[in-house]
Amino acid sequence: MKKHILIVPGDGIGQEVTEVGKKVLEKIAAKFGHEFTYDEALIGHVAIEATGNPLPDETLEKMRASDAVLFGAVGHPKYDNDPSAKVRPEQGLLKMRKELGLYANLRPIKLFDELLGASSIKPEILRGSDILFFRELTGDIYFGEKGRKNEGDTAYDIAEYSRYEVERIARKAFDAARTRRKKLCSVDKANVLETSRLWREVVQKLAPEYPDVEVEHQFVDSAAMMLIKDPKRFDVVVTANLFGDILTDEASQIAGSMGMLASASVGDSTGVYEPIHGSAHDITGKGIANPLASVLSAALLLDISFGLKAESDAIIAAVDKLLKDGFRTKDIADETTPADKILNTQAAGEELL
Amino acid sequence: MKKHILIVPGDGIGQEVTEVGKKVLEKIAAKFGHEFTYDEALIGHVAIEATGNPLPDETLEKMRASDAVLFGAVGHPKYDNDPSAKVRPEQGLLKMRKELGLYANLRPIKLFDELLGASSIKPEILRGSDILFFRELTGDIYFGEKGRKNEGDTAYDIAEYSRYEVERIARKAFDAARTRRKKLCSVDKANVLETSRLWREVVQKLAPEYPDVEVEHQFVDSAAMMLIKDPKRFDVVVTANLFGDILTDEASQIAGSMGMLASASVGDSTGVYEPIHGSAHDITGKGIANPLASVLSAALLLDISFGLKAESDAIIAAVDKLLKDGFRTKDIADETTPADKILNTQAAGEELL
Ligand SMILES: CC(C)[C@H](C(=O)O)[C@@H](O)C(=O)O
Ligand SMILES: CC(C)[C@H](C(=O)O)[C@@H](O)C(=O)O
Repeated sequence: MKKHILIVPGDGIGQEVTEVGKKVLEKIAAKFGHEFTYDEALIGHVAIEATGNPLPDETLEKMRASDAVLFGAVGHPKYDNDPSAKVRPEQGLLKMRKELGLYANLRPIKLFDELLGASSIKPEILRGSDILFFRELTGDIYFGEKGRKNEGDTAYDIAEYSRYEVERIARKAFDAARTRRKKLCSVDKANVLETSRLWREVVQKLAPEYPDVEVEHQFVDSAAMMLIKDPKRFDVVVTANLFGDILTDEASQIAGSMGMLASASVGDSTGVYEPIHGSAHDITGKGIANPLASVLSAALLLDISFGLKAESDAIIAAVDKLLKDGFRTKDIADETTPADKILNTQAAGEELL
Repeated sequence: MKKHILIVPGDGIGQEVTEVGKKVLEKIAAKFGHEFTYDEALIGHVAIEATGNPLPDETLEKMRASDAVLFGAVGHPKYDNDPSAKVRPEQGLLKMRKELGLYANLRPIKLFDELLGASSIKPEILRGSDILFFRELTGDIYFGEKGRKNEGDTAYDIAEYSRYEVERIARKAFDAARTRRKKLCSVDKANVLETSRLWREVVQKLAPEYPDVEVEHQFVDSAAMMLIKDPKRFDVVVTANLFGDILTDEASQIAGSMGMLASASVGDSTGVYEPIHGSAHDITGKGIANPLASVLSAALLLDISFGLKAESDAIIAAVDKLLKDGFRTKDIADETTPADKILNTQAAGEELL
């Protein structure tokens, strides 16, 4: 198969982990006889530094022209500590999502057996949990009008959802539930928010079309609690942009570490694959970042954008083997890990496939 | 001391647990020689049934005329499944918060030693954690304009914060941090929301007035993860209404159970004290609800509204003793709890003081 993949490392450890993700794609191409070509583009802080723009037109054009994008992370502490900055790395990420119509963000939360002990949650609570989140990614309070009034003394953000926006993400979630344990949990705050009431209405209206899927509605506060108390009760979860942002980061603890979690953003055109973790400037340049989330993002890319299931499974099996062989990156190591089994970013990549 | 306390049980298990909270207040009055008088009023679903109004004027007047309010819970599944209902129990709760100016919601997350095993989180992660949340309670997306447009096909909710609103809650949190471990974590989503950027600006501006308090800013997604990964790193947490709703429910797992967590809502006038848990209609009428959150809310009431620290401590010590004596309500019992140590709601109340 011939495919063109755009590598967009972005900021911080995004650079380090995406390099490993790309290496793994190269190994897969060699092994399975595919012809993948690559290009690279800038986004986020590094794009601002180079061009003044967090998402240069050139990057967007390259994304549109590619068959899939392997993405790193964006963000820089400089902006976090300056709430008044007008140009920010995250704008590049949000604009990319909007421009490419990436309305569905899939975040599979699956625990590798070997990491059962790495979580702060008890193994007996975790064992067997397997959740697939569908986070809406191009609407909600992220994209509504925002600004200041009263001479800057009042700030506002508008959350907005249309029926159409809710329906298309809900359908994706229903479809996925059908191929899994046939349970869908829709998370909202319908006892307070009008956007949530519309959300619930739409999901309720779709439910009769999926009689084989058991639908449950949960308030976001209660869901945040239940995820930790009893993660096994969840199968597919569908929720709005902001709630999805919070709940999936929280749920990373179910997988033992944020450093293991991949995501796929799909919609109208090119799909974008990226780790859930951020740019992590505190460990940038040390070579200790866990590259497995980027590697598993590459696996999602092969499966979802290219339909290469065997190749995708080969990557997952390789990650599993690495863990079974006792290797760990620093973030998932514990006091029982022998020093010679602790791998840096690059070495972890070399150990795979 | 002469004080007038209004009991507002509300819906579901609110009725059952508040009865126990009141009994404990009566015992304290007898023991310490205080004269507490009581009245009762309706809110939520029961108020809608009786008067058509989730917060009748009479209830509001009684609240204003009392020295403190012991509150239960509001909510009813009937409305949850009907997103189009115009009159809803929660409107009573929100109107109460607004009308009484209850802008600061204090939620202490403290683990009783005996419950170390009751949580889904590992004991070694939990041991020693002690967090005090300050959730802003009268602003944000809860109270901005909300509605529909495009013939009902688009829903919107406006989040809003003024400098003044952020400053008053932040000051309360800074003041509290001074009396504790001197660490304040302000949680926002300043990389996306304008309200969060204002929030961060205000907290940053106040920080130099509290040089003895170490201030940290965290994004809400990351905070949701950190709370579970390493709860001990938090001391005082201050955040907006919606984020506070989600994070404090999540944090209930740090305390072993939602059924143990009390909260205080304070501001311009009468303080309101209530469990964090909701109306829990699935267990209503069974007499098995854990009343300890209501009992601990009574303890907060005595301490914060009446300045009766010794009396408040007596309640906390009584709860501690009940647990040390091996008694449990169903929600905090486990397979090691002998059947004769499992108490129903009323019996748990009788065991105290
Ligand atoms: C960086 C930030 C804007 C982003 C988000 O909130 O969507 C990130 O947290 C994510 O989850 O991809
Ligand atoms: C019932 C609901 C409106 C309420 C809230 O969201 O504030 C509740 O969850 C709470 O935390 O007190």
